[in-house]
Amino acid sequence: MAAPSDDEGAVGPRCPQRSMAMLDIPFPPFCALLGSLGVLCVALVGTWCQHWRGGFSLDGGSRTFNWHPVLMVTGLVVFYGAAALVYRIPYTWNGPKLPWKLLHGGLALGAFILTVLGLAAVFRFHNSNGIPNMYSLHSWMGLGTVLLFSCQWAVGFGAFLLPWAPTWLRQLYKPIHVFFGSTILMLSVASCVSGINEKLFFSLKNGTTEYKLLPAEAVFANTLGILILLFGVLVVGALARPSWKRPDSDSLDSRQ
Amino acid sequence: MAAPSDDEGAVGPRCPQRSMAMLDIPFPPFCALLGSLGVLCVALVGTWCQHWRGGFSLDGGSRTFNWHPVLMVTGLVVFYGAAALVYRIPYTWNGPKLPWKLLHGGLALGAFILTVLGLAAVFRFHNSNGIPNMYSLHSWMGLGTVLLFSCQWAVGFGAFLLPWAPTWLRQLYKPIHVFFGSTILMLSVASCVSGINEKLFFSLKNGTTEYKLLPAEAVFANTLGILILLFGVLVVGALARPSWKRPDSDSLDSRQ
Repeated sequence: MAAPSDDEGAVGPRCPQRSMAMLDIPFPPFCALLGSLGVLCVALVGTWCQHWRGGFSLDGGSRTFNWHPVLMVTGLVVFYGAAALVYRIPYTWNGPKLPWKLLHGGLALGAFILTVLGLAAVFRFHNSNGIPNMYSLHSWMGLGTVLLFSCQWAVGFGAFLLPWAPTWLRQLYKPIHVFFGSTILMLSVASCVSGINEKLFFSLKNGTTEYKLLPAEAVFANTLGILILLFGVLVVGALARPSWKRPDSDSLDSRQ
Repeated sequence: MAAPSDDEGAVGPRCPQRSMAMLDIPFPPFCALLGSLGVLCVALVGTWCQHWRGGFSLDGGSRTFNWHPVLMVTGLVVFYGAAALVYRIPYTWNGPKLPWKLLHGGLALGAFILTVLGLAAVFRFHNSNGIPNMYSLHSWMGLGTVLLFSCQWAVGFGAFLLPWAPTWLRQLYKPIHVFFGSTILMLSVASCVSGINEKLFFSLKNGTTEYKLLPAEAVFANTLGILILLFGVLVVGALARPSWKRPDSDSLDSRQ
C-alpha cells in the first residue's frame, strides 16, 4: 500500500494543505460559537422539560423522567464535546501536556457522571411505573453508547494518565481512542434525536396537542434536536480538521 | 497558528504515522466485510417489511410505505457509503482519475434516485391516508439530510466533473465536499435509526405485539438499526483513516 497522505487539498506532494489554508479560520472564535451552541442546547432542553413537561422532581413520576433528556444532552453531548475539544485549543499546545490531560479526563468524567445520573432517572421512572426497560432501539443504542463511553474513559485513564503504561502501548492505543472519541459523540447525538422523537410521540397524544398537528412544543423540541445534530456535526468536524490538531512534535504525551 | 500536523500516533515530527502502521490492515478485506454488512442491512430491512409489515405495493396503503425504509437504507446508507469509499480502493490510485470520478458520481446519483423514490413512497402513503407530512423530528432531519445530499451532488458534479471549473475552485471546494460527505452519512444513519424506532412505536401497539414486550419483530428491527449504525461508523472511520486515503501526489483530480 502506498505511503499515507492527507488528500484534502491535493495540490501536490509538498503542499497538501494549501487549499485548506484558503479556508482556514482560527479555532478560538469557532470554539466560542460552539460553546454558545452547547449552552443553548442545555437551555432549550431544560426549558422544554420545565415549561411543557411539568418540571423536575425525584419522586419517580414523569417529572423524574425529565432529568433524563437534560442530563443526557448536558453530559453525553455538551460536556463530552467540550472534553473532546480540549487539545484543539492552541493555548494547550505549549508547555507540559499533563494539566490538559487532567482537564480532558476530568471533563469526560463529569460527562460520564451526568450520563449515569441521566440513565438512573429513566430507570427509576420506568421501575416506579411498571414500564419495561431496554426494549426500544433508542434504549439499545443509548445504553450501547454509554457502555462504549465507560470503556473509552477507563482505558484512556489507564493508558494515558497512569504512569506505568509503556510508550508503545500509548502509541498503539491513541488512534483507537481518537476514533472512538468521535464515534461515541456521533452515537450520542443519534441517541438524543431518536429519544426526543420518541418522547414527542409519547407525550403529544391528546386531540389539542397531537404531534402531527405540530404544536409549539413540537416545533420547539424538533428545533432542539436539529441544534443538537448541528453541535455534534461541528464538534466531529472540528476534531477531524487537520489544521486544528495539536502538533505533537515533542511527543510529550508519550512521556507524561 | 502552527503548521498542520496529523497527531494520530504522535511519535515525532518525521514519522507521524508510525503507530498507525502498527494497526494497519489492508482496505480490500475490510471493504469486503463492509460490503457484506451493507448487503445484510438491505436484506434485513427488506425481510422486516416483507415478513412483518405485509410486503410491498404501489396502492398508497401501508405496503406503499414499506418502500420507504427499504429505499432509504439502500440508497442513503448503503449505496451512499459505496460511493463515498470509491477513492479508498488502492486499484483506483493509479492511472487517470476520471473513470473513478464517474463511478463515484454515478453511485452517488444512484443513491440519490433511490432516496427520492423512498421519499415519494412516504409522501404518497401520507397523502393517501390524510396523514400530515413533515411534523416529526425524524422527518425534519431526514429531509434536511436529503437536501444537503442534493446540494452535495450538484455542487460536486459542477466542480469536479464539468470541465470549466478552475483548479483553485476545486482545491477550495474539495475539503468542504469531503467534510459534507461524512456528515451526510452520519445524518442519514441518525435519520434511519430514528425512523425505525418511530415505525416500531407506530406498528407494535396491540396487546400481543406491543413494542415494550419486545416481540421477535422488535428484536429483529432493533438489530437492523444497530447494524446500520455499525455500517455508518465503519464507513466514516474508513474515510477518516489516513493510510487509506488516495495519495494525490500527481494532482490528476485538478486537471481531469
